[in-house]
Amino acid sequence: MIEDKNQNKTDISSLGEFGLIDHLTKKIKVTQKSTIKGIGDDAAVLEFDKEHIVVTTDLLVEGVHFDLSYMPLKHLGYKSVVVNLSDVYAMNAMATQITVSIAVSNRFPLEALEELYAGIETAAKMYDVDVIGGDTTSSTTGLLVSVTAIGTVNKKNVVYRNGAKANDLLVVTGDLGAAYMGLQILEREKEVFKVNPNNQPDLDSYTYIIERQLKPEARKDIVKLLVDLDVKPTSMIDISDGLSSEIIHLCKQSDVGCDLYEEKIPLDPQVISTCEEFNIDSTTIALNGGEDYELLMTISQEDFPKIKGNPNLTVIGYMKEKNAGMHLITRAETQIPLKAQGWNSLDAD
Amino acid sequence: MIEDKNQNKTDISSLGEFGLIDHLTKKIKVTQKSTIKGIGDDAAVLEFDKEHIVVTTDLLVEGVHFDLSYMPLKHLGYKSVVVNLSDVYAMNAMATQITVSIAVSNRFPLEALEELYAGIETAAKMYDVDVIGGDTTSSTTGLLVSVTAIGTVNKKNVVYRNGAKANDLLVVTGDLGAAYMGLQILEREKEVFKVNPNNQPDLDSYTYIIERQLKPEARKDIVKLLVDLDVKPTSMIDISDGLSSEIIHLCKQSDVGCDLYEEKIPLDPQVISTCEEFNIDSTTIALNGGEDYELLMTISQEDFPKIKGNPNLTVIGYMKEKNAGMHLITRAETQIPLKAQGWNSLDAD
Repeated sequence: MIEDKNQNKTDISSLGEFGLIDHLTKKIKVTQKSTIKGIGDDAAVLEFDKEHIVVTTDLLVEGVHFDLSYMPLKHLGYKSVVVNLSDVYAMNAMATQITVSIAVSNRFPLEALEELYAGIETAAKMYDVDVIGGDTTSSTTGLLVSVTAIGTVNKKNVVYRNGAKANDLLVVTGDLGAAYMGLQILEREKEVFKVNPNNQPDLDSYTYIIERQLKPEARKDIVKLLVDLDVKPTSMIDISDGLSSEIIHLCKQSDVGCDLYEEKIPLDPQVISTCEEFNIDSTTIALNGGEDYELLMTISQEDFPKIKGNPNLTVIGYMKEKNAGMHLITRAETQIPLKAQGWNSLDAD
Repeated sequence: MIEDKNQNKTDISSLGEFGLIDHLTKKIKVTQKSTIKGIGDDAAVLEFDKEHIVVTTDLLVEGVHFDLSYMPLKHLGYKSVVVNLSDVYAMNAMATQITVSIAVSNRFPLEALEELYAGIETAAKMYDVDVIGGDTTSSTTGLLVSVTAIGTVNKKNVVYRNGAKANDLLVVTGDLGAAYMGLQILEREKEVFKVNPNNQPDLDSYTYIIERQLKPEARKDIVKLLVDLDVKPTSMIDISDGLSSEIIHLCKQSDVGCDLYEEKIPLDPQVISTCEEFNIDSTTIALNGGEDYELLMTISQEDFPKIKGNPNLTVIGYMKEKNAGMHLITRAETQIPLKAQGWNSLDAD
């Protein structure tokens, strides 16, 4: 996609390391009260008042986590931020700052890095976080983006993975499986393009699932919603690796079991139709697809009236004693043990 | 170096992503009072009392920042931590936590990653910082380590790059140029090894400079020393890219000029003798070599009696008005404008 353009290109090595960082970061403004000093010194300086601070970090590697033949760099920048913020929200915290480090080979012109940064800045603005630092260096081959996100949460509101109790309700936000099916469409179109570059794909019936793959959003709104509803989850995790894997994390860390009801798993109609087209089971995709960046939480039964009927929150099961195990209850009412197949980036090499 | 060993190897993909992270991090213990929750949730949780928090991040890329043919993985892990902590100390802050993300290809067996982590843990223990999170993923080619360091500093003690005033003294810790000359020795021995693998190098007269390259230390001791001496620098930066480049940073950000005295630049005898052997000018190496991780600071003239005679601190010049420019005053008393040649990792590709 980069190679298709033929405008003037600026060789990044012509700017030098400092020049490049200055150029890419000069437009970045900080707005958070807690940011005392952003980019431009040995370290950023922050100030928080009696709150807990949360810190999380993620790497996105070319050829493993993204394919630039269908992932525009601006979207990649956006997604790199979003996947980290999602982890902050999963602590029931609000994100305040990020650092962004990039390793890039000289095959990328400056304009490509500007696109990447434009996506990073768009996400930072959208989610109201300050970009406070980072590192830009060369790589011998591909592109790699490393983001660290920082957030704050009132001490009494922090939610860990290990607080679920038997009889708690298992609740998920949004719908599942769309990001994975979007990826299947993009990979299919890439193969078609290889055979016939003049083919114009008709992607109208896949817009939602493609957007879920290329431009995922993190559920900042849910953290606010939970405050409004006066609900503090007993445990929470974001869904990056697939529902099944995340449920197992909550169960293992909380020392409980669970029943998950297949019929309750929220699916978008495009996921269902695309799964039919690919002849794959939509439940399998929802369980193992990953990259949806929805939130999975457990709440106390007594909080059920507060969330009942809320379109953002779906009860998909409930927690049990540990010795009951972790099961999917199918539409045919059979019990199947949950397995973490997940999306394993270490198998990708 | 890894390839030379022939013990049992464990394929990292056999553990899966979660298994690998668990395996590598299971021994990690947290000791900082401010670490409420370390590895094991969506994010780490920290608590600080009315202090400023500093955050800094750095990437180390194989083939750009290190060469595994002479950099043992344990040393690489150690160095990855140290270079980040150095940035924290340069804010006059104490480091408290780090996150470590690693992208690694399957050509590395588990045992290699264990070595890398052993170095990380050794550094964390040595500098008393908690490893609170990270990400481990595959890469399509080389090894990449991304570290984010967090520290705290009493609000009134934070030192930025932009506080230097005309007439302030320019002060450096330790000695300069050794890391760069150590690298020259290692690269020479690598070439010798290629020609004659049976050659046993005699490196006795280079031990200090090789150690400065392979196992640099950050100047945590200086932050403590400054408290003991009751000196707050007016500006400070760590020397990662070479003295010249760092002086220019301080001058530009503080809007001042400076005179740097060649005869005052502290050099170890091994640097001088190795420079003679390579027939290169030791001042050039001190100015542009980089990777020494010493601290460069400016202090008010009235603080001079407090630092006078301290073996850790050398006055190498003084700051002037901006329009006086930035100059090296040579032994022959000629004025040469300072230039930032630095070590430019973007040229390395």
